[in-house]
Amino acid sequence: EQRLKLKDLCLLLYFYIISSCHATKPNMLNVHLVPHTHDDVGWLKTVDQYFYGDRNDIQHAGVQYILDSVVDQLLKNPDRRFIYVETAFFYRWWKQQSSSMQQTVKKLVNEGRLEFVNGGWCMSDEATTHYSAVIDQMTMGLRFLNETFGPCGRPRVAWHIDPFGHAREHASMFAQMGYDGFFFGRLDYQDRARRRRDKEQELLWRASDSLTPPMADLFTGILPNGYNPPEGFCWDQSCDDPPIRDDPDLEDYNVDDVVRRFLAIANSQAIVYKTDHIIMTMGSDFQYENANLWYKNLDKLIHYVNALQANGSKVNVLYSTPSCYLQELHRANLTWALKMDDFFPYADDAHDFWTGYFTSRPALKRYERISNSNLQVTCNQLEVLSGPASRKGPFGEGDSQTMKKAMAVAQHHDAVSGTEKQHVANDYARRLAHGWQRCQVLVSNSLAALSGSSAERMYCDNLNISVCPLTESINVYNPLARPVTWPVRLPVNGTAYLVSDANALSVSVFQVVPVSAATREVRRNRGFAVNELVFQVQAPPLGFTTYSVSLLQDGPPPASTQHRTPTAIQNKFLRVTFDPDTGLLSSLSNLETKQTIKLTQNFYWYNASDGNNLQSDQPSGAYIFRPNSSTPFLISKTAKTESIQTSGVQEVRQWFAPWVSQVVRLYTDSKALELEWTVGPVPIDDDLGKEVITRLDTSIKTSQYFYTDSNGREMLQRKTDFRPTWNLRQSEPIAGNYYPINSRAFIKDDVDQLTVVTDRSQGGGSIHNGSLEIMLHRRLLYDDVRGVGEPLNETSNIFPKGLVVRGRLLLSLDRPPSAADAHRPLAQEVVLQPLYDNPKKFSGLQAALPPAVHLLTLTQWDKDSVLLRLEHQFQSWESKLNSQPVTVNLQKLFSTLEVLGVSELNLSANQWKDEMTRFHWTPMTGTGHLNLFIRFYYISS
Amino acid sequence: EQRLKLKDLCLLLYFYIISSCHATKPNMLNVHLVPHTHDDVGWLKTVDQYFYGDRNDIQHAGVQYILDSVVDQLLKNPDRRFIYVETAFFYRWWKQQSSSMQQTVKKLVNEGRLEFVNGGWCMSDEATTHYSAVIDQMTMGLRFLNETFGPCGRPRVAWHIDPFGHAREHASMFAQMGYDGFFFGRLDYQDRARRRRDKEQELLWRASDSLTPPMADLFTGILPNGYNPPEGFCWDQSCDDPPIRDDPDLEDYNVDDVVRRFLAIANSQAIVYKTDHIIMTMGSDFQYENANLWYKNLDKLIHYVNALQANGSKVNVLYSTPSCYLQELHRANLTWALKMDDFFPYADDAHDFWTGYFTSRPALKRYERISNSNLQVTCNQLEVLSGPASRKGPFGEGDSQTMKKAMAVAQHHDAVSGTEKQHVANDYARRLAHGWQRCQVLVSNSLAALSGSSAERMYCDNLNISVCPLTESINVYNPLARPVTWPVRLPVNGTAYLVSDANALSVSVFQVVPVSAATREVRRNRGFAVNELVFQVQAPPLGFTTYSVSLLQDGPPPASTQHRTPTAIQNKFLRVTFDPDTGLLSSLSNLETKQTIKLTQNFYWYNASDGNNLQSDQPSGAYIFRPNSSTPFLISKTAKTESIQTSGVQEVRQWFAPWVSQVVRLYTDSKALELEWTVGPVPIDDDLGKEVITRLDTSIKTSQYFYTDSNGREMLQRKTDFRPTWNLRQSEPIAGNYYPINSRAFIKDDVDQLTVVTDRSQGGGSIHNGSLEIMLHRRLLYDDVRGVGEPLNETSNIFPKGLVVRGRLLLSLDRPPSAADAHRPLAQEVVLQPLYDNPKKFSGLQAALPPAVHLLTLTQWDKDSVLLRLEHQFQSWESKLNSQPVTVNLQKLFSTLEVLGVSELNLSANQWKDEMTRFHWTPMTGTGHLNLFIRFYYISS
Repeated sequence: EQRLKLKDLCLLLYFYIISSCHATKPNMLNVHLVPHTHDDVGWLKTVDQYFYGDRNDIQHAGVQYILDSVVDQLLKNPDRRFIYVETAFFYRWWKQQSSSMQQTVKKLVNEGRLEFVNGGWCMSDEATTHYSAVIDQMTMGLRFLNETFGPCGRPRVAWHIDPFGHAREHASMFAQMGYDGFFFGRLDYQDRARRRRDKEQELLWRASDSLTPPMADLFTGILPNGYNPPEGFCWDQSCDDPPIRDDPDLEDYNVDDVVRRFLAIANSQAIVYKTDHIIMTMGSDFQYENANLWYKNLDKLIHYVNALQANGSKVNVLYSTPSCYLQELHRANLTWALKMDDFFPYADDAHDFWTGYFTSRPALKRYERISNSNLQVTCNQLEVLSGPASRKGPFGEGDSQTMKKAMAVAQHHDAVSGTEKQHVANDYARRLAHGWQRCQVLVSNSLAALSGSSAERMYCDNLNISVCPLTESINVYNPLARPVTWPVRLPVNGTAYLVSDANALSVSVFQVVPVSAATREVRRNRGFAVNELVFQVQAPPLGFTTYSVSLLQDGPPPASTQHRTPTAIQNKFLRVTFDPDTGLLSSLSNLETKQTIKLTQNFYWYNASDGNNLQSDQPSGAYIFRPNSSTPFLISKTAKTESIQTSGVQEVRQWFAPWVSQVVRLYTDSKALELEWTVGPVPIDDDLGKEVITRLDTSIKTSQYFYTDSNGREMLQRKTDFRPTWNLRQSEPIAGNYYPINSRAFIKDDVDQLTVVTDRSQGGGSIHNGSLEIMLHRRLLYDDVRGVGEPLNETSNIFPKGLVVRGRLLLSLDRPPSAADAHRPLAQEVVLQPLYDNPKKFSGLQAALPPAVHLLTLTQWDKDSVLLRLEHQFQSWESKLNSQPVTVNLQKLFSTLEVLGVSELNLSANQWKDEMTRFHWTPMTGTGHLNLFIRFYYISS
Repeated sequence: EQRLKLKDLCLLLYFYIISSCHATKPNMLNVHLVPHTHDDVGWLKTVDQYFYGDRNDIQHAGVQYILDSVVDQLLKNPDRRFIYVETAFFYRWWKQQSSSMQQTVKKLVNEGRLEFVNGGWCMSDEATTHYSAVIDQMTMGLRFLNETFGPCGRPRVAWHIDPFGHAREHASMFAQMGYDGFFFGRLDYQDRARRRRDKEQELLWRASDSLTPPMADLFTGILPNGYNPPEGFCWDQSCDDPPIRDDPDLEDYNVDDVVRRFLAIANSQAIVYKTDHIIMTMGSDFQYENANLWYKNLDKLIHYVNALQANGSKVNVLYSTPSCYLQELHRANLTWALKMDDFFPYADDAHDFWTGYFTSRPALKRYERISNSNLQVTCNQLEVLSGPASRKGPFGEGDSQTMKKAMAVAQHHDAVSGTEKQHVANDYARRLAHGWQRCQVLVSNSLAALSGSSAERMYCDNLNISVCPLTESINVYNPLARPVTWPVRLPVNGTAYLVSDANALSVSVFQVVPVSAATREVRRNRGFAVNELVFQVQAPPLGFTTYSVSLLQDGPPPASTQHRTPTAIQNKFLRVTFDPDTGLLSSLSNLETKQTIKLTQNFYWYNASDGNNLQSDQPSGAYIFRPNSSTPFLISKTAKTESIQTSGVQEVRQWFAPWVSQVVRLYTDSKALELEWTVGPVPIDDDLGKEVITRLDTSIKTSQYFYTDSNGREMLQRKTDFRPTWNLRQSEPIAGNYYPINSRAFIKDDVDQLTVVTDRSQGGGSIHNGSLEIMLHRRLLYDDVRGVGEPLNETSNIFPKGLVVRGRLLLSLDRPPSAADAHRPLAQEVVLQPLYDNPKKFSGLQAALPPAVHLLTLTQWDKDSVLLRLEHQFQSWESKLNSQPVTVNLQKLFSTLEVLGVSELNLSANQWKDEMTRFHWTPMTGTGHLNLFIRFYYISS
């Protein structure tokens, strides 16, 4: 069994004593100065523009120079410390350095003078990211640090100083990755006020209701000034605070004034924290490009403040790092307030709720989500299953790194969040597209190896809009570890097709469905397909299946469109009724459980505040959601409808406005009702910004409660106009009740639970009893003054009049105790979609995994090993059937791999599980969930 | 005889081969990249704010960090070069460095990696400075470099990249200081266009019509982009040009584009210069605070451009310095265009003449001038004459350094020029005032030592406005090397006084003169004196004399004011007539030479352009003079007058407006007519900016010619609407004909010469035949968009409604061949004023120096030596009597010093005269003037 070697002294000293920390003074107030820079992995500029310092006309920022300068300045004085956070940047810098510079930096790291904190590829967004992509990006960053610096480079502290609200699932992941503590800067202003008063800005976060404590416990510290220095003490080149002028021969000697101001700030900060230690973040966005300015003045500050100790001063200032500060908090051996909920939503003032970005840039959010699916499926799994032949073959050299890096930067808190400038959003999308291309080479090689044929393959990336050049075979790859039944929709121009499975056991004739009016509108003048062929396929776990499709020259005509609203559509599982007067949904029934709820659904828009308002001048923008009124405008009381029925699918098409339409769709074998909405271009010729929602109004008695997921994993209970940990004064009745919906939300009462699975991150809430609303699209005319400097008003070449967005909501009606048995697999099917096109029937697994186990990650690690992440996907309380512990036989798992050994690692794969030792913290006052992190040794087949 | 030791290798190699220069390539275009920073010794911020990087809200600039950063970066790559210019800043930085850092810097200097250019305390203004103060500030800077770094620290190149026009006298001084060449950035745009066409941007400047060539010959180069980098190649933190992105793995690889753009620029620059070498200034104002940005990209630029040589490119780029570049020009062994005139006035466009600053801030200009007098007299001469006792005595420790430094920074091109922000102007004045205070301690000690009495002394700094507490003795110190007769004017409240000289040989009764209405207005409510006692004194060379003054209790009443305009006033030398109808001057006669001219004089104002103009949007401002019309407004056709006669003085007081008045004054023993003008507060309630002039209209037939001095020394011929070296297209008939009048101007024809000696620098011209106008005061309402960002609209606590300025013009009418015999000593008396107060009769000289010799400098150098500068003050052509060579016996010169040895130095006293070796340059196509630079060994008496 391979082990990490103990290369450096630091590991021996690692547990509970970090030798590189400066000594503190026991009977004094110790002020930990933490020099740091916050380097966004894209925001106003692209990640590479930030790295090089290009486009400084947009924002002065050049990370290459920051790292150059900091290393220089650390060498000038061994007392100095620096922390670095974003490995996406550090990696770029590192590979440009000479080996002697690399040695120098290693020395600084080994001596604790340069410390990595957080250490992921980026500092991920917490509201709109899926946990699977977050784990991947953290793993990528931490792996680089591990392989470059060994254990001394392993971050002990998670550091999310900028994200706009904090997810419980992030805290849980950080705990499982072995972090000893977590620091952040932003939380609700009322929450902060309460915590300052009660000295609860440092606390213990119990971040899972299913993992046995302290497995998901994470010590959490709220920084005193966001992540900025105290007022008057910013010595970066970007700041104007007075330098320390200590030459008495020159004008304006100010040492006495500086020391006096500093002591006043330190003492007032000490009052709102518990220990004799306080932390000050000395840095901010892209600071330290010229680190000399900072360090020269910090050296002087430390010198002159500590010099007063000779006169009886009880304040001791020192260079420090978050882990050195954390160590002192741990040594204090106090008890800490326990927190079980999360830090959403984030408001920095009464009318400034950062709940808009839950939905901002819905197309980018969807592209990021299907890119993750594509990465896991085409890059990772196929690379593992077909081995080295995938990386180099008849189609050239393929790689998964491009896609992995593109996905990693897309997790940044100004990337998938939708809060970047338009040109930067374009760059993220371009990177993902480039990643797809590189993956396709890998897949082509992989398929060539598996099939023995190197015939050229066509990929249907634009399957949603264009005609795919149909071959006789349609091949479907299923990335899930259990068999899946899936509707395939192929754009075609014929009218009827014969479809048969791999064994030609089942042969059926399928009519085609004419595409909807909305789709025709979008595709106008582009020569795209006018019909869709819809049929159901089944594929084995981690496996392929093949269907033959052939055009029937004299088959039946396409399914005909009915212009009368049907009273109902149904399959063997569900029945959906419509109000014939309005064309809207009227009820939903589960035919198996024999339950029925009233259900109406419609589309509305909130008028976005333009900032011209008596209470506050805050407009809605990329970050902030602020409706001008709590009552949204109804787009249309009624929907024009048409309906279509084929053997594969039933559709009722609803048309609400030229820019809002929907297809209510029920596949023959589906247990979920699909609502495929199309919104856009959102009209702005009335000069009103619009935030478009859909609202489901039901007969369920919700009593103000509803439920949303945290990063696609555990569910959290929400309550309107309420926060679990402080007495809320609600000032924004809509925006203040919005929460991130990452993969699903539900409402329930004792008998009914309606779960909505989304295909991307969105914001939503339950403003009224029995109701659930989800924001689908936003088009805004004002910047919201949080730095991005652009209104969120998306247009593109394809959509010059405004972005058109399409998406799906999947509705499932169940009895509450078994609802998770339906929504867990349903959501995973949305997250990991099947891949079309493959040569033969094949399964990578010898057998399906149990329903409770999700195959989260299967990716090549190095030439001899693969990284496998298996996950128990049910919370401890949510399913009688599936919340139980399960056992998986790893030896017999794969069909093409012979397992030589297995080692268990932490969640981020940068530490052996049995070597993971974390600080123990005592809360002021223990459910079966299994995470298996397993490393495989791979032998090519 | 003490000699500088040859400490370092560099000196041996110094002559004609500078070993530290990078090799160039003979058959290529060699591009010399010169990394540099331009650090204003005060402008938008004070000199100390610039040093520390304080008040970065005004302008981001911190020189301490520049020097920190440049030294760091030079150490990273021995190929890199940097030049530093302003010793005022370097000195501040140096004294804060550790000795190990000082050793490091010495190594860089010895290896030629850090090169000092110019090296004066500041980069002086060229239009408004007096040569005596310029020599002093250059000496102070060069001395520091000499004493710190030895010969390797001696600048070989003068570098005036920013001053707004260039004075011939500056070039002459630089030549005499041993500089091999001179580079600057600003010249008239028409001049530049012509020189580009004719490849005359590099030339030989023959900077004196009196010194035998090549004594005042100076090779002069005009830089290609002012002092900025070429467009697109500014890599400072203050710039936004794209960095070189040479990592092919990242986005936007741009090496090919950068190289292509660079080669295009280099080739187009080469076309307008003569040799295979071109220079590019890579830097600008306060750049290199983070030198890494510059050097990292310059390293790459050099690498990638030179890499193309392998493919046949004929361009070679190298790090260089001005002296390395100059060496290559010298090696080219070409002939160079010869220039005899100067570079005034400077225009950067058709309506943008930088001729306003010749007059801007007239009060500061005067304060700087009398501060120089004070420095020379009270600090320098008295320190020498009374020895070490002056520096430490009963009145504490005095020093001349404070005043010397204050004067040195005041020479900066945004100091005495008047082009700094108001708060910075205040700082310069404050520094001068502080210097005066320190001098007074020194003088008090000196006088105590000389008199043996340490009785407290009162200084009458405000002699021009307040009552001085009269003792019985008035003591006068004469700083000139010849006896001087001088009118003393003491503010008093009595009506008649008895005055006797030191020997009581001559006793006279003097009536007092009531102060003028304008003076009363200024002094209103301040309790100042109402009368002035005026009498003539005589003092020996470099010596004291004492007068007893006593109030006559029953003496005659004060001289009575006559309210009728006198037809004439006269003394034995001059007769002045007035027009009884207008009250204006009508003629001036020299009674000795029996010559008479018609002379009328009046006051006018130009309406300053507000920028709202069809031709150009350029307003008048601190730099730019741009009248809205060429016809100035007459303030009043007539003057109200009153007159007064006493035995000491005759005055005709003229009142033109509430804000313009004048005293026409003729002292009994004076050969010059004094016009004491008072202007202000300039009214602006009509929202019109005003530029106030006085104009002398005479019967002299000038034929467009007139004459102005260069920095108070040699006279230059001017011609209206004409430039000696190019075919002028005149676009501003007033502003384009203005020249700096530093100490005097004259107009003449074959028989008459009218010379006007000024008491400060002013602008002026001769727009009409026989006419001479001088701008006295400016009050403007708009900024002129050259960076200062303030309108020149001076107010103060004392003058809340606008600055009131008073000054004197001294008029001398002579035959042209002997006019210099009058104006040379007259101007020196204005520059070096006598000091009142001293105990006994005393002369520091054993005998007066001949009239042709001016004692320019007498100052303590170190404890054993003094620096003496003697100067032949007549141009070779201007006086039959005085332009001849003269001999001075140094051994017998001083009365209190025994001369042990004499060594002759260059003008800036940083090199022995006989070791001064300069490049020889051949012009494309000799006069008796003696400069003696003598070092004395001092023994305390």
